[in-house]
Amino acid sequence: MRDRVPERLRVKREPQRARYDRETVDAILDEALICHLGFAVDGRPYVIPTLHARVGDRLYVHGSAASRMLRHVSTGAEVCVTVTLFDGLVLARSVFNHSINYRSVVVLGTATNVEGDEKAAALQAFTEHVAPGRWDEARQPTEQELKATWILSLPLTEASAKVRSGPPEDDPEDLDFPVWSGVVPVHLAAEPSEYAWRRVRGGRVLGP
Amino acid sequence: MRDRVPERLRVKREPQRARYDRETVDAILDEALICHLGFAVDGRPYVIPTLHARVGDRLYVHGSAASRMLRHVSTGAEVCVTVTLFDGLVLARSVFNHSINYRSVVVLGTATNVEGDEKAAALQAFTEHVAPGRWDEARQPTEQELKATWILSLPLTEASAKVRSGPPEDDPEDLDFPVWSGVVPVHLAAEPSEYAWRRVRGGRVLGP
Repeated sequence: MRDRVPERLRVKREPQRARYDRETVDAILDEALICHLGFAVDGRPYVIPTLHARVGDRLYVHGSAASRMLRHVSTGAEVCVTVTLFDGLVLARSVFNHSINYRSVVVLGTATNVEGDEKAAALQAFTEHVAPGRWDEARQPTEQELKATWILSLPLTEASAKVRSGPPEDDPEDLDFPVWSGVVPVHLAAEPSEYAWRRVRGGRVLGP
Repeated sequence: MRDRVPERLRVKREPQRARYDRETVDAILDEALICHLGFAVDGRPYVIPTLHARVGDRLYVHGSAASRMLRHVSTGAEVCVTVTLFDGLVLARSVFNHSINYRSVVVLGTATNVEGDEKAAALQAFTEHVAPGRWDEARQPTEQELKATWILSLPLTEASAKVRSGPPEDDPEDLDFPVWSGVVPVHLAAEPSEYAWRRVRGGRVLGP
């Protein structure tokens, strides 16, 4: 698998944490509610938080927040979309071995502007991604609202995941150091609301 | 305030959400546990999740995950560090008015490599940022461990925040549309562990 991974996509740092299979990549993209969209203007990097949704082999990204800047980039802008699920604080016996448990995905590619029927489908995917069932309940977008929405699409051909899980990796000589070592798991939680959270995320992410 | 903000830092999209005061910027940087570091190599954007900590007017970023790539960039690489706190799902009556409550900060600047005493101080700041009190409890870093750590520093001179809070902004003509409209608040929560979460974050972020 790794042999087929393009050089610039290969995870160099902590390569044992790398995953290149689509199943892992898709699961992380689908669970994360927000992403960070990176692009360069005149060689300068910009990163903005926005929404995303995966539909099959394509990743859709809500581009409006970046629209002014990205419109200055010629069509076919190279982007990097990064999604990170933060799973826990890893408290080791040494400061150096402290870490974070996480699952992240980096998607590299050339973004294209989504138009027509695909745009409505992508908007539906965003809506269903954060609130399953909501598309059918809420008032559908008008032509004008669709025009005011700017959505980017990129293929999932250049995507890699990185996963750290499990306990701290204490050095053998630290094992007697008198401090607690372990993981404090963290997760995104929803507070009660009239609109039950189980409905919102189907209990997938926000569950207790 | 806004008049003094450099052009490339000004929030163009939804400018009413912009905040340029350091108090707001600092509070968001201090509350967020992870950041996304953006940089460009040969004009191509890359975004990776990593750790950060603010010390006064400087932002430190754990650069190891990006080290291979960033080392290829000449010293004084331009970076963009973005931090996002996800506060809620905003479910409006129309699909178009759906949104996310969030607080984000974008820091633009030229990153320099941290060395010497400042490096140990930055490492201490990372540790205390995720787990207050941990620096004094855990085994201190050796010279070799400090050498293996790569930390970037950038000034907080070019930083802006963006904040969306509050209920959905339904169009007046949608108010009778028969669907619930409101916010599902979300927050990062810690699960029980031997190492009490109140200790870890002082109850600031991870509290119930």
